[in-house]
Amino acid sequence: MQELNQGSVTSPQGFLAAGIAAGIKHSGKKDMALVYSVVPAQAAAVYTLNKFKAAPLQITEQNISNGTAQVMVINSGIANAGMGKVGLEQAQQMSDWAAQATGVEKTDVIVASTGVIGMPLPMDILQKGIGEAQAALSAEGGHAAAQAIMTTDTVCKEMAVTVDIGGTTVTIGAMAKGSGMIHPNMATMLSFITTDAAIESAALQAAFKANIDDSFNMISVDGDTSTNDMVAIMANGQAGNPPIQLGTPEFEIFQKALKHICITMARKIAADGEGATKLITTTVTGAASLADAKLAAKAVIASSLVKTAVYGNDANWGRIACAVGYSGIEFDPNKVNIYIGSVQVAKNGMGLSFDEAAALEILKQKEVPLLIELNSGEYQATAWGCDLTYDYVKINADYRS
Amino acid sequence: MQELNQGSVTSPQGFLAAGIAAGIKHSGKKDMALVYSVVPAQAAAVYTLNKFKAAPLQITEQNISNGTAQVMVINSGIANAGMGKVGLEQAQQMSDWAAQATGVEKTDVIVASTGVIGMPLPMDILQKGIGEAQAALSAEGGHAAAQAIMTTDTVCKEMAVTVDIGGTTVTIGAMAKGSGMIHPNMATMLSFITTDAAIESAALQAAFKANIDDSFNMISVDGDTSTNDMVAIMANGQAGNPPIQLGTPEFEIFQKALKHICITMARKIAADGEGATKLITTTVTGAASLADAKLAAKAVIASSLVKTAVYGNDANWGRIACAVGYSGIEFDPNKVNIYIGSVQVAKNGMGLSFDEAAALEILKQKEVPLLIELNSGEYQATAWGCDLTYDYVKINADYRS
Repeated sequence: MQELNQGSVTSPQGFLAAGIAAGIKHSGKKDMALVYSVVPAQAAAVYTLNKFKAAPLQITEQNISNGTAQVMVINSGIANAGMGKVGLEQAQQMSDWAAQATGVEKTDVIVASTGVIGMPLPMDILQKGIGEAQAALSAEGGHAAAQAIMTTDTVCKEMAVTVDIGGTTVTIGAMAKGSGMIHPNMATMLSFITTDAAIESAALQAAFKANIDDSFNMISVDGDTSTNDMVAIMANGQAGNPPIQLGTPEFEIFQKALKHICITMARKIAADGEGATKLITTTVTGAASLADAKLAAKAVIASSLVKTAVYGNDANWGRIACAVGYSGIEFDPNKVNIYIGSVQVAKNGMGLSFDEAAALEILKQKEVPLLIELNSGEYQATAWGCDLTYDYVKINADYRS
Repeated sequence: MQELNQGSVTSPQGFLAAGIAAGIKHSGKKDMALVYSVVPAQAAAVYTLNKFKAAPLQITEQNISNGTAQVMVINSGIANAGMGKVGLEQAQQMSDWAAQATGVEKTDVIVASTGVIGMPLPMDILQKGIGEAQAALSAEGGHAAAQAIMTTDTVCKEMAVTVDIGGTTVTIGAMAKGSGMIHPNMATMLSFITTDAAIESAALQAAFKANIDDSFNMISVDGDTSTNDMVAIMANGQAGNPPIQLGTPEFEIFQKALKHICITMARKIAADGEGATKLITTTVTGAASLADAKLAAKAVIASSLVKTAVYGNDANWGRIACAVGYSGIEFDPNKVNIYIGSVQVAKNGMGLSFDEAAALEILKQKEVPLLIELNSGEYQATAWGCDLTYDYVKINADYRS
């Protein structure tokens, strides 16, 4: 597996993309993305579990129920959520316009929106934007598309990897946006993945869903699960490999590459959480079940007190223990060891006299690794989050204005 | 029911208290409180559900398993949590010293600690402090005791009410500390209640436990459930009323007064959350069950995005809807109405064009009421929280230093 320089959703063969400024954002920044496959592709998606599931997700779910898609259309600036029947009509219209502009089947559209909740989309601007984006589609358009889905993101999140599958080079590309309303308990992220792999529908679904749980569902920025979260993938077969089937060595290779993409993108989202200065990586080992390992790891990265302590370079391990304690899992507090990087700060549930200077050095890095050994079983999990800073408050105290 | 001016835990008859600076806090502020009843009292307590339950709570649980207590001893500055066997020994020693100094039965002690996790108590300072506090016990010592249990609290939280029970005036007093690591999902607060009511043990337990769920368990500051949370009550019978029994009109009067105490103290804790500038009161009506109403109300007050929006005076109702959506309850999104104070901002799950100036006026008040009508059932609940501010980050980024 090799990571490409400047990889994007147009790195795989047979994908064109565009990102343009349609005028939905008042800032004049890019706000409309199209990703187009030259042939219909196998498709899969996972959606937020928020009961207020945004209209575009509902339309996408209908559209790709037959397992195929050919175009992704995404706007940023307005989320088209909390808009009832009007929102559904607008999302359907957006989907129809994208199908019409690109000449694909009406149901081969993945449609997504991100931005402010509770405002209608400006439909004339949207229609014009879809036309302009279609005209701008190109094999070099991946980066512009990734820019066009950003909201409060400070970093454009995209990548691509290649793998050899039975002698054929297969490419997987991805783009994602963060960076608030992100919490792992229930759902997923806004991320779009493309691949030129030929892969059977069942194999794609299996590889996709397994990886989401260990990547996008293991990050948290602020504990809020958005109404608009979605991760979608299109596989268009243009690499020309023999279709990948479940249970084969080729499936394992593809799945491993996809996992690398999902985890890397998830880490990028966590690291660029609103106001974040650091990525926090929490690994829990020795849990009685996988579910327990995940719950504990997520409780630690979601804890406001752990997040502020990491921001303040404070080796306050008691807050880590506290978060594990209220995570709801079963374990023996007297068996717990805690490490900040390589520095052990607690043993058998009790604080150690540790090297504060060494811990400080680790806390000052851009990625802070935390390890909790429960010693109560055989399961482990890793979760990613970020520190909680003044800027998080600043960004979110005045988001709509 | 009448609220007393400058009421405290020594307002009820037969209670003495003291708060002194023993030297546990480097700041030189008060850090040791004693509350003493002139006779053994009926006692009840509820404890954190955090698995890392701090040592003092474990000792208290043992001590009051027989339903009586006569003295409360509390230190601030060091939490005596995450200290394993050493912590248990220290808490037992602290309990024994308090019993010895005040001449009560060894098991008639409620012991609590609050402050930094993972540090040992300075036992010589503690022993000396207990002696000094005993010497300082007085019927006017309630306020000093309330000061001595403060950590990052900016406001001293105490009160007392009187009620007429069968012609006898009964008094209930209380003190509490906040103001971080506070989350309602599992547990309770550090609060101490005294009353001179004569009340049967079963009636006291029933009145106490019912009220905790609707008050201290319905607040959140930061989503973190502390290892040291506890609410305890002592009823010493010194008012001379005929003992209150379950199921009588007198029980109802007592229970109502206790509820007023618990809700008022809970609101004080939420309003003085770390860095808070405003109290947020969220009421959810029309839920399918009481559990659903509570879950939804707590999700809204715990949402970082709602909390920052309130701080920023931003009527971003979509974040309120979003939090209800991920709270895990069953409801129909298309029936939901949302109000900020008296201003309706969403109807049937859809945003309204509302009076932004009127909403802004409400958001600028010291208490911001949010109402969510689910229209999916008959149950309702209220939860209390606070805004998320720069100062929360500041306080918690550098707590240990």
